[in-house]
Formats: sequence, C-alpha cells, structure tokens
Amino acid sequence: MEIAFIGLGNMGAPMALNLLKAGHALAVHDLNGQAVERLVTEGARPCQSPAEAVGNADLVLTMLPAPQHVDKVLTGDQGVLGAIRRGVPIVDCSTIDPASVRRLAELALAQGNDLADAPVSGGTAGAAAGTLTFMVGAPAGLFARIEPILQGMGRRIVHCGDVGNGQVAKICNNLVLGISMIAVSEAMALGVKEGIDAKVLADIINASSGRCWSSEVYNPYPGIVETAPASHGYQGGFGVDLMLKDLGLATEAARQGKQPLPMGALAQQLYQVWSQRGAGHLDFSSIIQLLSNPNVDKPRSITPLNTTHTP
Amino acid sequence: MEIAFIGLGNMGAPMALNLLKAGHALAVHDLNGQAVERLVTEGARPCQSPAEAVGNADLVLTMLPAPQHVDKVLTGDQGVLGAIRRGVPIVDCSTIDPASVRRLAELALAQGNDLADAPVSGGTAGAAAGTLTFMVGAPAGLFARIEPILQGMGRRIVHCGDVGNGQVAKICNNLVLGISMIAVSEAMALGVKEGIDAKVLADIINASSGRCWSSEVYNPYPGIVETAPASHGYQGGFGVDLMLKDLGLATEAARQGKQPLPMGALAQQLYQVWSQRGAGHLDFSSIIQLLSNPNVDKPRSITPLNTTHTP
Amino acid sequence: MEIAFIGLGNMGAPMALNLLKAGHALAVHDLNGQAVERLVTEGARPCQSPAEAVGNADLVLTMLPAPQHVDKVLTGDQGVLGAIRRGVPIVDCSTIDPASVRRLAELALAQGNDLADAPVSGGTAGAAAGTLTFMVGAPAGLFARIEPILQGMGRRIVHCGDVGNGQVAKICNNLVLGISMIAVSEAMALGVKEGIDAKVLADIINASSGRCWSSEVYNPYPGIVETAPASHGYQGGFGVDLMLKDLGLATEAARQGKQPLPMGALAQQLYQVWSQRGAGHLDFSSIIQLLSNPNVDKPRSITPLNTTHTP
Amino acid sequence: MEIAFIGLGNMGAPMALNLLKAGHALAVHDLNGQAVERLVTEGARPCQSPAEAVGNADLVLTMLPAPQHVDKVLTGDQGVLGAIRRGVPIVDCSTIDPASVRRLAELALAQGNDLADAPVSGGTAGAAAGTLTFMVGAPAGLFARIEPILQGMGRRIVHCGDVGNGQVAKICNNLVLGISMIAVSEAMALGVKEGIDAKVLADIINASSGRCWSSEVYNPYPGIVETAPASHGYQGGFGVDLMLKDLGLATEAARQGKQPLPMGALAQQLYQVWSQRGAGHLDFSSIIQLLSNPNVDKPRSITPLNTTHTP
Repeated sequence: MEIAFIGLGNMGAPMALNLLKAGHALAVHDLNGQAVERLVTEGARPCQSPAEAVGNADLVLTMLPAPQHVDKVLTGDQGVLGAIRRGVPIVDCSTIDPASVRRLAELALAQGNDLADAPVSGGTAGAAAGTLTFMVGAPAGLFARIEPILQGMGRRIVHCGDVGNGQVAKICNNLVLGISMIAVSEAMALGVKEGIDAKVLADIINASSGRCWSSEVYNPYPGIVETAPASHGYQGGFGVDLMLKDLGLATEAARQGKQPLPMGALAQQLYQVWSQRGAGHLDFSSIIQLLSNPNVDKPRSITPLNTTHTP
Repeated sequence: MEIAFIGLGNMGAPMALNLLKAGHALAVHDLNGQAVERLVTEGARPCQSPAEAVGNADLVLTMLPAPQHVDKVLTGDQGVLGAIRRGVPIVDCSTIDPASVRRLAELALAQGNDLADAPVSGGTAGAAAGTLTFMVGAPAGLFARIEPILQGMGRRIVHCGDVGNGQVAKICNNLVLGISMIAVSEAMALGVKEGIDAKVLADIINASSGRCWSSEVYNPYPGIVETAPASHGYQGGFGVDLMLKDLGLATEAARQGKQPLPMGALAQQLYQVWSQRGAGHLDFSSIIQLLSNPNVDKPRSITPLNTTHTP
Repeated sequence: MEIAFIGLGNMGAPMALNLLKAGHALAVHDLNGQAVERLVTEGARPCQSPAEAVGNADLVLTMLPAPQHVDKVLTGDQGVLGAIRRGVPIVDCSTIDPASVRRLAELALAQGNDLADAPVSGGTAGAAAGTLTFMVGAPAGLFARIEPILQGMGRRIVHCGDVGNGQVAKICNNLVLGISMIAVSEAMALGVKEGIDAKVLADIINASSGRCWSSEVYNPYPGIVETAPASHGYQGGFGVDLMLKDLGLATEAARQGKQPLPMGALAQQLYQVWSQRGAGHLDFSSIIQLLSNPNVDKPRSITPLNTTHTP
Repeated sequence: MEIAFIGLGNMGAPMALNLLKAGHALAVHDLNGQAVERLVTEGARPCQSPAEAVGNADLVLTMLPAPQHVDKVLTGDQGVLGAIRRGVPIVDCSTIDPASVRRLAELALAQGNDLADAPVSGGTAGAAAGTLTFMVGAPAGLFARIEPILQGMGRRIVHCGDVGNGQVAKICNNLVLGISMIAVSEAMALGVKEGIDAKVLADIINASSGRCWSSEVYNPYPGIVETAPASHGYQGGFGVDLMLKDLGLATEAARQGKQPLPMGALAQQLYQVWSQRGAGHLDFSSIIQLLSNPNVDKPRSITPLNTTHTP
C-alpha cells in the first residue's frame, strides 16, 4: 500500500517520517525541495506535483497551512483530484474552516473519492513523538478504514461525526482554550496585584470551580508550572499567531452561521493587539504580559526575551 | 466557649445550625425575627443587636450580603466593635471586596481584635451539608485558632494568606469561572450549529486543552451532565445575579488596582444583559441561552420556565 | 453611449431607472426576470447573461449583494470579462471587501479593462431619489471619466484614491457608525435610568464632545428625532443585518491586515445577538432595546412591533 | 455677598480666580497651603478648614477630586455641614457619581441647605478662560439662584434636571466620547493600513454618518486637525487617566442601576491597558497607538515623546 503525503512543513515532515517508520511506502510532494530531500533520504519517493504523488496512491494525506493551499493542491492544475484513482480516500489534516472542507468533500465525492478532515492537536513535539490527537470528520466506514493509518502518527484518534466535524471540534476546543487562557491571566494578574501569592492562588483555583487546563497544566504566570512556557520565557509552545489563526476560524464560522461569539471575538482582538506589539512568535500564554505593567509587574523569574519587538 | 453568629440568611442559617450540631453555644442576631426564632428552637440564644450577641462571645462570626451591611454590623450603633471583648477574634464569611475587609481589619486591630475574612463556596446545599469551602485570609496564628471551628461548617479550609486574601481568592476563582462558562457556552452553541453532536463535542473538549470545570462538571448545554442545572431547566445552582455580584467585585477591585480585566468586564456585561431580560434568578449557566436563537435553538429537553420574564 | 447594468435588486433597480431618466441607453441583466421586465417597460434592453449585456457597452455597472456574486458575474461562464470590449471600464457599486475588488481589478486590467469600486450610501430612498453618495476607488483618469455618469444616480461623488479605497472608506465610515450608535444607546439608556430626561440628555450630548450623527440625526431613543426610525417603531432605515454585514467586512479586513479592532468586533457581536433574537429586519438603532429591560424600560411612545420574533 | 470656595487644584484655582475678578468676596480653603497663598494674593480670605470658610458664606462652592473628598469636606470633622448657616446653598462642581451627590444632598436638605451638582467640561484651559460648561442638577428655584454666579466662571450653564442629573449628563456625554474616540481610532488605523489617505478618510467620515466630535474636532490621527493633541505628540488635552476615571463612574453607575454597558466597559478596559503601559498622562486620543504597530505604524509626523514610559 502506498500513501501520498503532500505538505512537508513543521508538522507534515515529522508526521510523514512516522509513517515511513511504520512501514508504509510514501510518495511525497512539497514546494520546498529541501523538505522533500530529507524525506527521500528516509526512503520516500519524491514527486514534482500533487498529481504525480497521488497517481499510484491507495491513500492521500495533506497537511497544509490554510484553505487556499488545500484548495489549490486538490483542485488546481496538476492537483490531486485530477489524478487520483476512483475510490481512493483523501485525508486532509490541515486546520481550516469547516465550510471549505465540506465544499471540497462534495467535489471529491462527485468524482468517486471520499474525503475526511482530520486536524490535529499536540504541536510539533507531538508530531515528532507520534502522540498527536486526530479529530476526524468522516462517515463511519471511512473512519474505520483510515484509523489504523492515523495511529501510526498519533495516540488518540477521535471520531467527531461526518466530514467537517473534525474542524468543528478543533475550532471549538481552541475557542475555549484561547478564552480561558486570558481568564486565568486576568485572575493571576489581579490576584497578585491584590496581594495573594501566585502559587497559593493557582492551587485554590485548581481545586475549585475555576479549574481548567490553562490553570493546571499551562499556567501563564511564571514559576507555577515548571513545564509550561511561562516558566521558560514564553518560548516554544503554541504561538500567539497560531491561536490568532484558530480564533479567526471560529469567529468566521460563527459569522457565517449567524452565531454570536462575543468572548471569542474579544479574545481574538486581544491576541491581535499583543501580536501587533511584536509577540506573535511567543507562546500564547504570554498574553498575561499585555495585562501587566511592563515596567513594574514583570515577574522577577522571567527569562529576558532576546527580542526588541516585545514591549 | 460561646460563638456569636450574626446574619442568618440562606447561607448563615444552615451554617449556624451546623455549629449548634457541633456542640457550640450560639448567640445569634438577625434583623429578621423569624430567622432568629428557627435557630432558637435549635438551642441558640436570641439577641436584639450585634452588641448584645458579642458581649460574652469567644468568637464572632458574620455572614452578610454586602460591604455596607458588614460595615454597619461592625462599626454602627450597637455594633460589634463597640461591645466585643479585647482579644476575641472576628471571622467575616461574607463575600465583599478585599479593600473593605482590610479597612475593617485595621479598625478591629486598633482596639485589640483580630479579624479574618473567610468567604465560602459551595452554595446553600454546601451550607446545609456542612461541605463548604472556606477561603481564609488571616495571620497564621489566627488561622490555626479558627480552623477547627470552620471545620464544623465546611470540608475544605484553605489558608490564602493575610487578611483580605480570602476575598481575593474567591473573586479570582469566580472570575475564571464566570468567563469560562461563557467560553464553553459559545463553543457548545457554535459546535452544535455547525453540526457536531453536543455530547461528542463535550467529550472532546473534556479530553483536550479546553477542559474546565464549566465543561466537565457543569456543562451549560442540556443533557450533557445529568446533575448540572442545564439538565434541569437552569433551576437551582448559582444564580446569574450572584455571578454578576462577584464579577462586579472583581472589576471594581481591578479598577481600584489599575489592573485591566477586559474579558472579566465583558463577561459581567453579558450576564447583566441576560439578567435584565429576566434571567437573574436562573443558574448562571443559562447564559448559553443569550447566545442561542430563542425560537429555533431552544434545546428540546429543557424544562419550560414558569416565568414570563425570560425570553 | 450604451451602459450595461447588472444587478437589479432593491438598490440596483432604482439606480438603473435614474440612468434611463438621464437619457442613457441601458442593457440590463438580472437572474430575476420580473426585475428585468420592469426596467424593460421603461426602455431598457433585456439580456440573458452578463456577457450579452456587455457586448456593446461603453461602460459596465454592477450592483450585487456579496463578493461571490461579483466574482461570478465578472469571471464566471458567460461573465463580463469574457465578453467586454477592450478599454471599456467597469464600475462595481456593490459593497464587498477591498481585497476582492483589488483582485478582480487586476484580472480586468490584465485584459485591458479598468475597474473602479464605487459603493454607495443613502439606502433605497437615496437610490430612488438619485441622492446617493458614491465612494469611488479609481485612478484619477478613470474617476474623471465615470463621475458624470454617477452624477445621474447620486448627489455626492467622492474620490477616495485608487481601486479598493471606495470600499475602505465605506467600511471605515460604517465601522464608526455601528459603534457610535451603540455608544449613544448605552448613554441614553443609562441616563434615563439615572433619572435625566431623554430630550435634555440628547440636547446636552449634541452640544458637547459626545456629539455625533447617531445622536443628532438618528437618535436611537424614541421621540428625540421625529424623522429617525426610533420614532417609528424602528421600521425602515438601515437594517440590523445590513450593519452586521458591513461590520463583518470591517473585522474581516482587519483580520487579514493584522489590525486590531476590539470595539468593532464587539459591536458586530452585539448586533449578532440582537439579530439572532429576531431583530435583523429592524433599523440598527433598535440595538438600544438589547440594552433595555424588555418588560420595564420599553419606551411608552414606541409603536408595537408586529412580529413574534422580537423580545 | 461672600462665597466659600473649597478645593483649589488645577481646576478650582482658576475658577476661584475668575470669581474674584467678577467682584465676589471669597473665603478659600485647601489642604495645599501654597494654593491658598496664591488666591490670597489676589484678595481671597484664607481659612484653615471648610467649617471656617463657610461660617459667613452666602454660597458654598466645592471642587474636589473624588467622592471620598467631597464626603469628608461636607460631613467630616470641621466640615461644611457642621458650620454652614441654614438656607445657604452648596454647589459641588466635582465630577463624582450621581448616587453620592444625591445622598449628600439629602443630608444637606435635612438640615435646611439645598445642594446642587454642577460638574464642568472644558478642562484647565476653559477654567482659566472662564469658558467652562456647567451641567447643573438642581431644583428650578436653586438653578435660577446660582446661574448668575456660575456665569462668572463659564460660558454655558445647562440645567439638567434635579440634583444628581448634572453628573448623569457629564458621565453620559463622556461615555459616548470615550467610545467614539476608539471607534475613530480603529477606523483611521484600519483605513490607513488598507491604503487610503488619512486626510481623505477623515473628510469622508466627517461628511457621512460616522461624523462625530472625535473625528471632526479632535481626530486621533496626527496631522488631520492642527489644533488636536494628536498633531502635538498627544501632549495636553484630556488625559487617558481622566477618561478612565469618568468611564469608571459610568460603569459603576450602570452596575448599581443594573444597566448593561458593554461598549463602555470595554472602552474603559482598553484605556486601562493603555494607561498601564505608561500612557496615563497622554491625551486620551493617544489610544490609537494601542491599536497600531509600535514599530511600523508610528505616524511619521508625530512628535517624539520625551518619556520613557510610553511603549
């Protein structure tokens, strides 16, 4: 069985590598020749176009940055849909809007190909370790068929319902995440300003009704959780600009669906203010610094940031 | 040892009752004569004023609705501070602003009385069952002295630091809670609108980085958590108007401390919109209804509300 | 000189009629046959497709609801770009996003046709009376060429700079409008609640630094401005859903441009909440009702709304 | 006729001076001895306490920073109410919350003294020039009595209704002002980012439905209005921290009145973020800088700020 893998970026490359390790034959394509080279040295077959990659494939995987890239790879000149064999399933692992996925799935279905969306969480570390979570939108039959393949790249493969629902699940989870991170940031900044010890406050919240992943696992206040980016100068982790992208998908889906999203929209704007001030590459929990006095409140334990952009 | 208990409302009355059950002698006072009567039939000694209640007391407990009431009971005519014996500690269990508590603590200290703040969480059910959480602001010595008494009314007695910090802890926790409840509401409403099953979505969030108390234990979407108010017509629980009060304390503390609280402020306003439309007495998780189409999106399982106020 | 006019909706039809009255020959097209019929009885030539309409035209005008319609009419099968003569200018009067307009202008230019954007303000009343304002994005030469034609449909023809800038101007103006209407609504609702007479308050604001079009000309409180929709049950005027569309264009342009828009985003969400509660067809100044107690604060002079949707 | 004037700060001192120039006898008091000295050299009589100042007075004027100061000056030890003669009216020109004013008016009335609130707009420049606007809350009889005195310090004396309504009017006006300034800032920043000329955009808004004082008279974009603080490095004008105070009064009045104020609350938070980053002393129109890229978008014409606080 041969798998076509298109999109070898920071996420796609380690995912493809794990498929090779799992024993699959891989035909790979990316506009970046160096990215292709690295996979070739591990045994993948290089291809000049999506069309070439999918010609022989029994399964097609795509991992791309945004809707317009997925659109072009699937429907463009030398694209997937023009060369794929009838009946071969396509699994798009990109994080894009549900409407785009569903439109592409219709196009694919019209020519005899099932399409599933399977956006991931877990970041580049999870991609390398093969511990990603896949949120899969697909009919039950297709899910059963692709689940074993995805297990070569991830730890949890969650069936979210029909096509598009993988995106919905990811967007909705990250919506809660993006908001609750600011909630915890406001609470920690206010509490410390009002005189309570940060560690004591975090412990109380974590044992009470304010308990959440942003407080327990990923607390934005430095020194509370040793493994959190907050304790390491907000380096690594999940960037402000990535959170911004996901909240943009949420508010755009809400706009199209005529669904109010007041807190999500405000969260998006606050991350945008913060990104504009030069923090786009920092972990998103650095948003606590937007709510703290840059001259007075800078937590003493924080690693100095080697950037002139950050206020 | 005799305890003076002042304020026998929905929370104070069951708390006082638990102290009686624990074997303490109680001198009680409330403006509501019937509330006093009920405690008297259980063995408490009725008093006409705070001053009368505290004359013989070895400890004074107060449980009152708002700062002005605490102020009046302590410093007013026939108030606590005019009659309490030197050295007797005062424990105020009301939820008020940290600044007021600290100001009163200074007044008390100036005449030789320690004052601790010990706001609670757990609601009327927790008060009746004796399972409240007390968040205590007090010097270490005072905390050690009052902890055994509070254990007669609660399950967790948390030391939050010096006086005022109990309030800070409670306000900060409820700030996160009030925001994350709207976050989960937005995510559930958007997800269902976008076609994902509510139960599936909640399960995914609860296993991912959006996980929080508001999603796991108290999900605002009907039918997800059987014990949550959402599954029972948003009756009972923690009222919109109570959440509104606590968010008001948070934004007011932030204003005085010159601390930004953008998400907290917006959350407060959304609960205020919802309260104004007649939902003040419903559980605060009913905020999901403000974000849902009242004609189309009303969850089928919801118990009809017997009120003409709620849209 | 013949003008091709494509899009004969609520705005387009009266605009086309005014061009006929001004003596121009018109070739018209719309998917709605009745709309075409009405123009034909006034002397226009009916066409089955955009391509047919533009074949002989010396100028092409389009007035369509959304980007996807403009895209299809210009680039689709039997579209404008496939049939237009080289050198003939295209003027798109639709309100869409600047990026789409600029992309289409590039396509047109590549085949030798200039494209200007010229969104309007003034509503259906202004369209009928020929008193619209046109905000035109076009090179100076093209502007000079089309200005006399537009004067047949409007009173003010404003040159906003190069192509796309007409949309930018309209979006930015309506952004301020949408926000300031809620600002005035909050101030009027709060002031009246605090005991000041609505008319006195409006007069003070209008003579002070809060002065704005939303307060002076279009006050949302009933009975302040006789000609404003607020004094006529919020019927007519500029609908909540139209304001929602324009604020959506603003926040989307801001998202793409990585520009924060916190107040604009919140305004959009508040109109969305209000629309979802059934008010989408009411004038946008009805947003004051979202901020008022529906049972107590309903202004006495208001005309009862004959809709079961509105709270 | 002798006037007691209490509170000789940046506003009070020039106001008192104008009363002296108008020929009134003045008894003055302030905690700052130097402030008293300056007035004495102009002919005022120095007093050691509010009580001393009002003993002989036929009218009492107060101009103080915040509710607690007004409260202390009126009801404190050696305060106004303990020494004023029965029937002498009190006019408080401070900007405070309506509830406090009304409570004090009741106290005063109970002992036979009318109290009016008369907050001002026009800033220190207006105070010096005698061109302030007074927004007066008072019964009609009292208004008639004090109007001639106030005309010695201001140009417009507006009767807003009964006591407290002067504060309501000022708060509501500044609420609209604070919001619309951010609205114009967002529109100017977005428009310029999207490629339109700032001057062209301002002209279009000023001739359209976005027209407002913040755009026409006080545009936050540098170089649009020559006399506006934006054209002079945001020096002078009305400080961010003063706007913050007034929006705090508005949201607090709204909270007490159970009135939603979502845009006002968000505006307050944005000014708070900006103040916390060191901009509290800049004119409030500098909020546009919070919405602009500090490295890229800094308008070229702007005067460099000689402060290390501003990001």
